[in-house]
Amino acid sequence: MTTGRFILALHCPDAVGIVAAVSGFLAERGFSIEESNQFHDLPRDAFFMRTAFSALKQAGEVEAISAAFEPIAERFKMDWRLYDTAKRPRIVVAVSRIGHCLYDLLHREQTGWLGGEIVAIVSNHDDMAPIALWRDKPYHQIEVTPETKVAAEARMLAVVEETGAELLVLARYMQVLTPETCAALSGRCINIHHSFLPSFKGAHPYKQAHARGVKIIGATAHYVTPDLDEGPIIEQAVSRVSHHHTPKDFIEMGRDLECQVLARAVRWHVERRVIITGAKTVVFT
Amino acid sequence: MTTGRFILALHCPDAVGIVAAVSGFLAERGFSIEESNQFHDLPRDAFFMRTAFSALKQAGEVEAISAAFEPIAERFKMDWRLYDTAKRPRIVVAVSRIGHCLYDLLHREQTGWLGGEIVAIVSNHDDMAPIALWRDKPYHQIEVTPETKVAAEARMLAVVEETGAELLVLARYMQVLTPETCAALSGRCINIHHSFLPSFKGAHPYKQAHARGVKIIGATAHYVTPDLDEGPIIEQAVSRVSHHHTPKDFIEMGRDLECQVLARAVRWHVERRVIITGAKTVVFT
Amino acid sequence: MTTGRFILALHCPDAVGIVAAVSGFLAERGFSIEESNQFHDLPRDAFFMRTAFSALKQAGEVEAISAAFEPIAERFKMDWRLYDTAKRPRIVVAVSRIGHCLYDLLHREQTGWLGGEIVAIVSNHDDMAPIALWRDKPYHQIEVTPETKVAAEARMLAVVEETGAELLVLARYMQVLTPETCAALSGRCINIHHSFLPSFKGAHPYKQAHARGVKIIGATAHYVTPDLDEGPIIEQAVSRVSHHHTPKDFIEMGRDLECQVLARAVRWHVERRVIITGAKTVVFT
Amino acid sequence: MTTGRFILALHCPDAVGIVAAVSGFLAERGFSIEESNQFHDLPRDAFFMRTAFSALKQAGEVEAISAAFEPIAERFKMDWRLYDTAKRPRIVVAVSRIGHCLYDLLHREQTGWLGGEIVAIVSNHDDMAPIALWRDKPYHQIEVTPETKVAAEARMLAVVEETGAELLVLARYMQVLTPETCAALSGRCINIHHSFLPSFKGAHPYKQAHARGVKIIGATAHYVTPDLDEGPIIEQAVSRVSHHHTPKDFIEMGRDLECQVLARAVRWHVERRVIITGAKTVVFT
Repeated sequence: MTTGRFILALHCPDAVGIVAAVSGFLAERGFSIEESNQFHDLPRDAFFMRTAFSALKQAGEVEAISAAFEPIAERFKMDWRLYDTAKRPRIVVAVSRIGHCLYDLLHREQTGWLGGEIVAIVSNHDDMAPIALWRDKPYHQIEVTPETKVAAEARMLAVVEETGAELLVLARYMQVLTPETCAALSGRCINIHHSFLPSFKGAHPYKQAHARGVKIIGATAHYVTPDLDEGPIIEQAVSRVSHHHTPKDFIEMGRDLECQVLARAVRWHVERRVIITGAKTVVFT
Repeated sequence: MTTGRFILALHCPDAVGIVAAVSGFLAERGFSIEESNQFHDLPRDAFFMRTAFSALKQAGEVEAISAAFEPIAERFKMDWRLYDTAKRPRIVVAVSRIGHCLYDLLHREQTGWLGGEIVAIVSNHDDMAPIALWRDKPYHQIEVTPETKVAAEARMLAVVEETGAELLVLARYMQVLTPETCAALSGRCINIHHSFLPSFKGAHPYKQAHARGVKIIGATAHYVTPDLDEGPIIEQAVSRVSHHHTPKDFIEMGRDLECQVLARAVRWHVERRVIITGAKTVVFT
Repeated sequence: MTTGRFILALHCPDAVGIVAAVSGFLAERGFSIEESNQFHDLPRDAFFMRTAFSALKQAGEVEAISAAFEPIAERFKMDWRLYDTAKRPRIVVAVSRIGHCLYDLLHREQTGWLGGEIVAIVSNHDDMAPIALWRDKPYHQIEVTPETKVAAEARMLAVVEETGAELLVLARYMQVLTPETCAALSGRCINIHHSFLPSFKGAHPYKQAHARGVKIIGATAHYVTPDLDEGPIIEQAVSRVSHHHTPKDFIEMGRDLECQVLARAVRWHVERRVIITGAKTVVFT
Repeated sequence: MTTGRFILALHCPDAVGIVAAVSGFLAERGFSIEESNQFHDLPRDAFFMRTAFSALKQAGEVEAISAAFEPIAERFKMDWRLYDTAKRPRIVVAVSRIGHCLYDLLHREQTGWLGGEIVAIVSNHDDMAPIALWRDKPYHQIEVTPETKVAAEARMLAVVEETGAELLVLARYMQVLTPETCAALSGRCINIHHSFLPSFKGAHPYKQAHARGVKIIGATAHYVTPDLDEGPIIEQAVSRVSHHHTPKDFIEMGRDLECQVLARAVRWHVERRVIITGAKTVVFT
């Protein structure tokens, strides 16, 4: 049995009749559309769509609806997935010693804003153990040294797998993942970088920004790929700064940016609003 | 003959099957959707949609397509209209003695940004005659006094009618229109108010804002209704201010806000992105 | 003994020689200016100044420096105060059942961002007791009914007094204070209102904003005065909204605004950056 | 004779007594401070100050006041200059074929907002000749080819010199200046770059931004140095974009950003609010 509320996310080559086919499918089954977004990427001849719909009477299982939709998907060569919103996405959060993003995500989970469920916290330090304890979240301290890096990431992936998590959030996790781990988590790992990418990649972005004398700083949430800080951008935000701000001020001001940008990215991912297309994203908000 | 690019804008009570019917209609005729937005206003059980589509082969006239669509519109009780984008909307701009919004609209018309065509300028003063002359626009100076107000507005409406304009833009036109004129131009007259409505209605909003000590000022573009500054809001923008700004500074800073907010509202109207619903608007951007 | 870092905040009628007198005073004593802001309110012939300075060698007590400064203050008829930054301002936070602002303030206190020290939490409910317990803060549950209102506020004032707090922060405290309490806390009580004042005063501002169809929502931190939501504004922030947002969405989006606006207002107050002048504020940031 | 309103801009190593000396100097002569900003760059032990002051009675010439101030400047090793605001700064604007920034600057000059006076327009094309004619500005069309580049820049510098201009504004002038010309105009040449620097230096920044999939675009005004797009940043602004925006949309949206950012940078320069310090700027606003 289901709650009767579903989300269909798809993309395919653009063609005449896609929307008619999808909406016809929903109408025939008596599904009521609650929210629908579509994007015709004309220069690239690609089509993207996200539709949230609900059943007025008892709906079937998500598997049955998916099976019925399969012929339409095949006809238009869709890359697609149907989600039952009754199943809350499970999230693992990775963090090092700086806790504001974790703290913020936990609060947003608690108020229901986040959508998903944080099922575990992993860290290469023990600083965040008390907040995990208070919020009653399993805390996996996995030390990382050059020697243990591969093993540590294997353990991290094991936590993701064992908890049934579909998303790993790097909430100021100060370790660069190996290309293998990046590949294993392709499209399922979101990082917050504390600069307005592509400016100031790598270490100490606020210091770099201060040295360059920019008048606006930013933060960027993106999917992790093997190319450091080059993955598809999901969300960015900025804040004005002035000559009298020190790098320490940037760090303080950046906290708010990082929390908001990461939280929005996670929520949008969880609500199936983000579709990755090459090095970029379509975000239906 | 048409360019073969059309925009369909509609709203109606929400129901299962609307999108299927509309997109089915378009698909059957081989129309290719370029952009489509829909909004299911669940609490009010209302549905709004805007679709831009083009014909791959020769399309019929807009009248013929409209006639074919009529049964669908009736079935769902739609309030709707189909536009041929080959026909550029015609605009009359009203202005008093402060020219920045007029100047800005003329520049945006020239670059093609605005979408519509400014076919006449009306003013209760002669200050803007030189710019009208330079841009080769008919300039109608229509003096307004308490005695001549009704006649003046009749002349203004005559200019709108004679030019075939579908939109009157009050670009810092410092006269309150009579309820009759507001009614005659219902949904076709956009005003720029230099405050963040509903704060600071009426005269001298920047002065009011300064006296209140706000830390952010704004501008609002809205459709004109008989209730002063109470019409449906199309767009707003804001700017930070500080204790050291005088009312004169507010006026100067406000100019940029007013230009941008008004220009966006006019463009969105012209592109049929704005649907009025009661005291509010749906804006598909 | 002092830390040797001080803040001087003052205002007075504008006159030739004020800055010379103040900076001369500091230079003679070998004080090093770290940050200084001044504002000449020319139309009102008023002068405002905030200077942070430190002692290169051992400074005297704040009382001794104040006594030495007294003649200058008298000469220019200053309203002034000298603060020793070694003494962290003490804060009482009042909250009802909605915890995001409290939660945010506690986190900012912990990271040191806030500047002040939260010494007690008062509430008319018990919902926030667990977070108070976790953060090890005294929690005073003071029920408020029409009958107990006066007594309840007396208890609240007693908590402020007993803790030596200089500031009461209403962090979504859903009770209107009596004029007497407002007067007793004049210039020492900051409220967060969840609208862009002066729009949407009173109850349910997000609902009001939704009904009006605004395209931007906001939050306002202000000093509490007997006139509801009319006190001097310290800080405001805004966020874009769209037709598809419900009042519930406004509430969710507003949380971030409220947290940030309130936190900034409290920090600026604590750092002596805010000077009240009539119904407005000068904020040196 | 002077208007009696002056601006003093200075920077020097930080020391105890600078403000006392400057403000004492002003007070002794009966000058009334209208606006004053100072910045103690503690990590670099540097001090920056800008003071606008007026004479209550007849002031001397700017040369006489400067001479009297000289001993203080020497004592603190100041890099400084005193400006008489009666002398409006003269500006030459360079433009290629894209006119929005020129158009905007001319309008802001006309309303008085800009502060300075545009005394000539230089261009490597003739597209902007009509607007120059309408605004009655000398228009120097100076063709640039690889062969004529050096001669063309010499002519451009000659226009700057002959008009007594102190500032050259590159308002979408699509030529890279030679290092020699950059050096000759050091601190006197402002460029608008249509990206959020340091992202997307060089050609076609909007195309680069689109390819990277950023969610925010920007514009940057900076002083020109021999390092392309690496000069001290004066001002930046940004605008949100989405997946549905094309590079052409970025260009259109960028126009507003470019106009505003460049206009603010020019005005601040003209008002002596910008002090260059190494690769960065101090901007007193």
